Amino acid sequence: MNRTPLGFDSIEFPPDCSWIKIIDQTLLSVKEEFLIIDNIYTLVDAITKLKVRGAPALGVVSAAGIAMSISGSNGCGFNEINSIIENAANIISNARPTAINLKWGVERMICCFKKNFSPAAFNLSDCKLTLAKEAHIIKEEDIKMSINIGERALSLLKPGYRLLTHCNAGHLATARYGTALAPIYLGNEKGYSFKIFATETRPLMQGARLTAYELKKAGVDVTLICDNMVSELMRRGVVDAVLTGCDRIAANGDVANKIGTSSIAILSKHYNIPFYILGPESTIDRYTDDGDKIIIEERDGFEVTDMWFSKRVAPIDVNVFNPAFDITKSELITAIITDKSIYHYPYYFSSVEK
Amino acid sequence: MNRTPLGFDSIEFPPDCSWIKIIDQTLLSVKEEFLIIDNIYTLVDAITKLKVRGAPALGVVSAAGIAMSISGSNGCGFNEINSIIENAANIISNARPTAINLKWGVERMICCFKKNFSPAAFNLSDCKLTLAKEAHIIKEEDIKMSINIGERALSLLKPGYRLLTHCNAGHLATARYGTALAPIYLGNEKGYSFKIFATETRPLMQGARLTAYELKKAGVDVTLICDNMVSELMRRGVVDAVLTGCDRIAANGDVANKIGTSSIAILSKHYNIPFYILGPESTIDRYTDDGDKIIIEERDGFEVTDMWFSKRVAPIDVNVFNPAFDITKSELITAIITDKSIYHYPYYFSSVEK
Repeated sequence: MNRTPLGFDSIEFPPDCSWIKIIDQTLLSVKEEFLIIDNIYTLVDAITKLKVRGAPALGVVSAAGIAMSISGSNGCGFNEINSIIENAANIISNARPTAINLKWGVERMICCFKKNFSPAAFNLSDCKLTLAKEAHIIKEEDIKMSINIGERALSLLKPGYRLLTHCNAGHLATARYGTALAPIYLGNEKGYSFKIFATETRPLMQGARLTAYELKKAGVDVTLICDNMVSELMRRGVVDAVLTGCDRIAANGDVANKIGTSSIAILSKHYNIPFYILGPESTIDRYTDDGDKIIIEERDGFEVTDMWFSKRVAPIDVNVFNPAFDITKSELITAIITDKSIYHYPYYFSSVEK
Repeated sequence: MNRTPLGFDSIEFPPDCSWIKIIDQTLLSVKEEFLIIDNIYTLVDAITKLKVRGAPALGVVSAAGIAMSISGSNGCGFNEINSIIENAANIISNARPTAINLKWGVERMICCFKKNFSPAAFNLSDCKLTLAKEAHIIKEEDIKMSINIGERALSLLKPGYRLLTHCNAGHLATARYGTALAPIYLGNEKGYSFKIFATETRPLMQGARLTAYELKKAGVDVTLICDNMVSELMRRGVVDAVLTGCDRIAANGDVANKIGTSSIAILSKHYNIPFYILGPESTIDRYTDDGDKIIIEERDGFEVTDMWFSKRVAPIDVNVFNPAFDITKSELITAIITDKSIYHYPYYFSSVEK
């Protein structure tokens, strides 16, 4: 497996999964503080407070959490271990109700437990080892997914390209490398010398806090801009392609992603710049026809007017519209790059074909 | 003259110009603090610290400052008054080197002084009165300019329109009403019930701090959004037209305005929404062929990464690109509305025709 570009993985755990090490993402980008988590309550606290975030990363950390939950158990029988796992699964998967990957990771661990163990001739050491191994496999699969996305995307990019990315679909959001940022890290390893522009990504500033941090930490040439500066950059001809992640891909190729993505896609079309969406094949939702059917979460105005600021920047009680995501129409997307394939417009991700 | 929509003008002064009252714009939007300025040093401090800003407003305040500089003089002859005015003119017009309107206001006052007074039979009371009157005329002309822009623009808008604006080209940037916001205030007086979306306008937050403040204060229905939310709003079909100000209009109709303007213009074209530029006729620079010839000021990265924030939001020493303005190509502009006319694409503001 390739090296980890930041010098650490976003989620690390020992062979026996007795603890989980993460970097506290709420303190980034200025302060690097690592947390050693050794119980599920601290883990749930970290998930709830977004100290660890990103859909793939949450899948990995929830699986490791299940293995961790039984790692310290001694002299337990099948029923006790089963209870511990069910309790941990319940607590972890409800830490963030909309984070589907938490449930996915937990369920895969339960599946592994049920497939391999039963009350008859239960061996605790073997169980701990098997579940810990499964958590490591899940992490390795996640890294492989990122590498596959990265390598496919890299085939579309040339050395020296100046790339723009939005929000954070990076190393910190996965076990390693990321989705949209994977080709950047892989290209960097090959001496591609990419130059990256990262949008700060209002209102939650993931671009400034996370993307600029992780790229700089990895030694990538990164320049931070405000979201409203993309057009001027493109007018100057200094952007060769755009790479962003995705939260959900509809059957027709419409993409739901962080607010601001559709704006960049429209600007890319205007300036004739390739616009690429990168994400795991599992992001494709074949049962949703198009983007208009995707309901967009609207969040509290506090994030726009108060959060991060030393004093409120807008009048008290002013109306605020704060959609967390937007819909990018499929015809604006040059290619959708997953770990399985590179897709081009027009997109047909039908549930029948699957 | 029409009523002042906020209950106060951004610049107020008595008949004798012995003081100038402004609202401290650096403390907005949460704190309303008025300053009574009675000497040119306090005035220059206010200009330098952006307590008063906006090109038309600076023209008015600099003229009032000249009248104020001699308002307390007693027993002076022509030469002494001439010295006081020249000294004040020099200090005020250099308060902000690039603010051309400061020089314009000061020069107009000097012109008035030189035209009407000479060492022969100099009358101090008459001089004070004449200059104070000239400052009031300049303010009234500025208000009339805003009303003319507003009324022309209003002819293009329908009651109930949902309008989007960027940055602050409002009441606070002029003597009254503003440029881009003038039709909103005039429409409001006529019961047009506009609904306004104001972009926060990173990095300096003029939309959140100033536009949202002044519209809300005037009782206009205003909703604040982040700059990257414009596309999602337009996709939902809730924007009927866009109104923005302008810093400079080239001879071919290309417009330099606050960073982010060109992005909104491209989105407007994509979603088929009228995009209007509003400003005084004096903003047209007939000697600059097109937008590519306009040099764009790049400002310190501190504004992006530190200013306003309770703690820095980006890694130390990260590269930041912070252009203060961008260029909107003329073909994206549905109409340019000045106090003199409504212009449509293709635009020809040649210096010969003038």
